[in-house]
Amino acid sequence: SAAAAAFATNHLYGEKLSKADLILPATKAEEYVSGGFFADNTAPCLLGGATLTRSKLPFDVTKIGHIDNLRIILVTPDVIVLTREAREMLPDTVSLDGFINNMANSCLISAAFAKNDYDLFARSVNDVVIEPIRAQLIPGYAEVKENALKAGADGVAISGSGPTLFAITNHTNSRPFLIEDAMVRTFKKYGIGSRSIITEIDSVGTRLID
Amino acid sequence: SAAAAAFATNHLYGEKLSKADLILPATKAEEYVSGGFFADNTAPCLLGGATLTRSKLPFDVTKIGHIDNLRIILVTPDVIVLTREAREMLPDTVSLDGFINNMANSCLISAAFAKNDYDLFARSVNDVVIEPIRAQLIPGYAEVKENALKAGADGVAISGSGPTLFAITNHTNSRPFLIEDAMVRTFKKYGIGSRSIITEIDSVGTRLID
Repeated sequence: SAAAAAFATNHLYGEKLSKADLILPATKAEEYVSGGFFADNTAPCLLGGATLTRSKLPFDVTKIGHIDNLRIILVTPDVIVLTREAREMLPDTVSLDGFINNMANSCLISAAFAKNDYDLFARSVNDVVIEPIRAQLIPGYAEVKENALKAGADGVAISGSGPTLFAITNHTNSRPFLIEDAMVRTFKKYGIGSRSIITEIDSVGTRLID
Repeated sequence: SAAAAAFATNHLYGEKLSKADLILPATKAEEYVSGGFFADNTAPCLLGGATLTRSKLPFDVTKIGHIDNLRIILVTPDVIVLTREAREMLPDTVSLDGFINNMANSCLISAAFAKNDYDLFARSVNDVVIEPIRAQLIPGYAEVKENALKAGADGVAISGSGPTLFAITNHTNSRPFLIEDAMVRTFKKYGIGSRSIITEIDSVGTRLID
């Protein structure tokens, strides 16, 4: 919403700034709410596709690319996770093993978006550092993930600080709703309602809708 | 040399294996010497270009790409750094800040090789976690780096566990030898001889030379 507000404000004032120029103010606005200065939400919202950002100054946003053959199943359980709280849970240090592991997977994900390679992305969605911590905020997470994989997902992870999860599949999978269904039903087993949607990556970013 | 040995052995026995098949045995051989099971040396030697490897099993090597407009100045000071010792110096944990910082830069380097983007690579060569530790093994490192940058390098880092350093520039720089010179002279100031070479990335990998 920080990205949308920045985009709308800029439009009302006659589009004086480019979308890239809006990332810094939108990120400052988000910092006010989340307590962290990260452009991980604002930059992709504005630019579309996958972006990678060094939020530390000098502020540097790079559009990496996108994956055509990627279908995303988003499930948001009715659990409140405050971005600020989720960030405060993070440890001060990370094991060297976890560091190396996540580094390799993240670099491969980055290359996958640059090369438009779904398979490379799918076999790199594996976070051994942050996900196990944030999973604690989402009751039933392990079982939801397991059931999504059984239903045909190629990977499952928590989106940002949560509570939204995403599962991935590709366009050759004709029944992505089976994955959606498995996730929603598993949450229900834990007494948790959820909203869900099957979607794709927006490669355009913020735009006007009539 | 583990990569070269594997390549030569395979050649003598009639090229029964592909280069990709040789990575695992070559890496096992290197593990015997270095104490670490990492394909960070063997894979790029065999395949050429930039490769990214998950050394943990399942073993997974991805050829990322290469950067045409990249010139590398390699300087090896007469200092003995054993790979095994350099690995043992590494801390057990890494700060979350350092983790995030290195993750962003590494992902951008990966994207830079996938997109053949020298500028993106140059502004991402910045390791805040491992370099400061390994720099302790190389007398004068800080000053060598500073003088290389002053002489026109866009980035300087330690190659693997050291003691070889590399500085980068691009082909529009008509005087890369100024960088080489600055580095060699600075080491000399510290009483350390060195060998140096101005080179590029080999995008082919191991091959036969008549």
